[in-house]
Amino acid sequence: MPAMNRRFLLRARPSGDFDPKIMERVVEPAPVPGPGQALVRNRVLSLDPTNRIWMSEGESYLPPVPLNDVMRGVCYGEVVASNGSYRVGTRVVGLTGWQDYALVSATDAMPVTPLPGFLPIKPTDAMGVLGATGMTAYFGLLDIGKPKRGETVVVSAAAGAVGSIVGQIAKIYGCRAVGIAGTREKCDWLVRELGFDAAICRRDPDWKAQLVKACPNGIDVDFENAGGEIMDAVMDLMNLNGRIVLCGMISQYGKDDRSNLGPKEFINVLTRRLLIQGFIILDYIPRFPLAQARMLWWIKRGLIKESHTLVRGLDNAPAALAGLFRGDNTGKLLVEIDEPTA
Amino acid sequence: MPAMNRRFLLRARPSGDFDPKIMERVVEPAPVPGPGQALVRNRVLSLDPTNRIWMSEGESYLPPVPLNDVMRGVCYGEVVASNGSYRVGTRVVGLTGWQDYALVSATDAMPVTPLPGFLPIKPTDAMGVLGATGMTAYFGLLDIGKPKRGETVVVSAAAGAVGSIVGQIAKIYGCRAVGIAGTREKCDWLVRELGFDAAICRRDPDWKAQLVKACPNGIDVDFENAGGEIMDAVMDLMNLNGRIVLCGMISQYGKDDRSNLGPKEFINVLTRRLLIQGFIILDYIPRFPLAQARMLWWIKRGLIKESHTLVRGLDNAPAALAGLFRGDNTGKLLVEIDEPTA
Repeated sequence: MPAMNRRFLLRARPSGDFDPKIMERVVEPAPVPGPGQALVRNRVLSLDPTNRIWMSEGESYLPPVPLNDVMRGVCYGEVVASNGSYRVGTRVVGLTGWQDYALVSATDAMPVTPLPGFLPIKPTDAMGVLGATGMTAYFGLLDIGKPKRGETVVVSAAAGAVGSIVGQIAKIYGCRAVGIAGTREKCDWLVRELGFDAAICRRDPDWKAQLVKACPNGIDVDFENAGGEIMDAVMDLMNLNGRIVLCGMISQYGKDDRSNLGPKEFINVLTRRLLIQGFIILDYIPRFPLAQARMLWWIKRGLIKESHTLVRGLDNAPAALAGLFRGDNTGKLLVEIDEPTA
Repeated sequence: MPAMNRRFLLRARPSGDFDPKIMERVVEPAPVPGPGQALVRNRVLSLDPTNRIWMSEGESYLPPVPLNDVMRGVCYGEVVASNGSYRVGTRVVGLTGWQDYALVSATDAMPVTPLPGFLPIKPTDAMGVLGATGMTAYFGLLDIGKPKRGETVVVSAAAGAVGSIVGQIAKIYGCRAVGIAGTREKCDWLVRELGFDAAICRRDPDWKAQLVKACPNGIDVDFENAGGEIMDAVMDLMNLNGRIVLCGMISQYGKDDRSNLGPKEFINVLTRRLLIQGFIILDYIPRFPLAQARMLWWIKRGLIKESHTLVRGLDNAPAALAGLFRGDNTGKLLVEIDEPTA
């Protein structure tokens, strides 16, 4: 008898704040691999701000998830049956969706291979510092931001999955790292645990004045995860020839009217010779191996601390995603997929 | 007896559309060079959209012209008296202002030196294709836009000083060149005389549809001179990994509220991995010589056609600048400085 397969289907497009009710759980028998296919048992699901983009209609970097289809999601899992392509027991990361079981073909999922001389890779690391999250921080900051020793790097959503790593890499590169986060506790954590030079709580009434004070030499690199008012405040402090790494605009994803999302004092881009570069981590996949090796080395030396928030139970995924947009999590937000109990 | 020196002073900051009345003409005796100084007789004055920025308060790439001071302007002139630094008779280009005579020190003005094997440089060329205008087109398009053979380059204010050269360089590089201009006549001129593949009149009711049609493969490089609605329409058609050369935003300079100048569908910068780079030509001065040599060669081979609108008489400069913002000129707008007749 096949195992039960819980699947979360997207029943409606999101509008305004993300409402978990647009996801519906159905239970089906786990599928059977056809020729060249393998069956993956998902173990950990990654939740990311970009999930909101995937659910929405309109242009994006991936086609929107079709209505009534299983929700797209990155998972860590294990091959439990194979009809070619993968060996049973292989650990993989791929877009295997919000479900217990997924069929994959040869190139759908990447095996998680430990590097020689390192311990086996933990699922939370495979999804976090060594996964799309860590790679986003690495390539966004180093390839686009090009931080130089002594420069000031500001990162918004700093206590989030990407932001918390951006600040730590900035420190490795000898920069002043300033974070903007949503609570006082997160800010304390950024400074005390992760070594940020300063962190500003965007809910403080005087957060803009605090930002000015935290950046006495202006800002050279903005690693932008927030957009909106935060981006405007950061751009106002950008130095000549500053770089804006446009990684995300989480504050704007809930807005149905996308017609006015841009930075306000845009003429500063001209007069200060700023660079703004949008990027999507998928473009960097061929370059992951070297970056992952460096990241492992930094972790081993204690220069990068991994952090995550683990939600237990696949059934809690929709509510956890809503919490992501409220800023409930610290570090990478992951769902540990439990055993289905029909 | 010293010569008469007409000088246009900035009496008020511009607000809304540029009003020539904020400039006042005064007449004074020409100054006498002190030690290390030289006296330049201005012959041709360059009028540029950025003059509006120089007049305005608030942050910019140069300090605003002080009220009641002579208006800043780039001129072609001749050294007529020297107390060191320059030889009398030397032709120079520099920020010698809206006046008949200016004092310059050693580094204030650049001598106009003909290249070996080329004819002497005409004043209109020194100010246009070989001056800041041509260099802006050259470095903006090639250094930032990085056009590749077969790509589509769109330039706004295409019949202006910079835009008309941008399209011609794009053609030299094997690109499809599409211009956006303000009148049907200018558009015809761009296509028939300068070899643009298409030109769209932004006053046509269906200009956006025309732009879509003129760019069947989307847009790879936007050389942005206009800002506002035009930039939004171009950005809407940008291809993945497109480059936006932010050279100017002439449509926005007359707006006193600078708080909402940015592009509207800004999230496209993220999903399409666009690059936006603001630049100011002053940063490229050390690299002018090679670019000027290439430009001269292109002119000689007939690949670049120089064009300008010459207004006669310094007294007409304020009105001519107002006309620039209405789009009265084609190509580079220059004022031929006449002899003062007190």
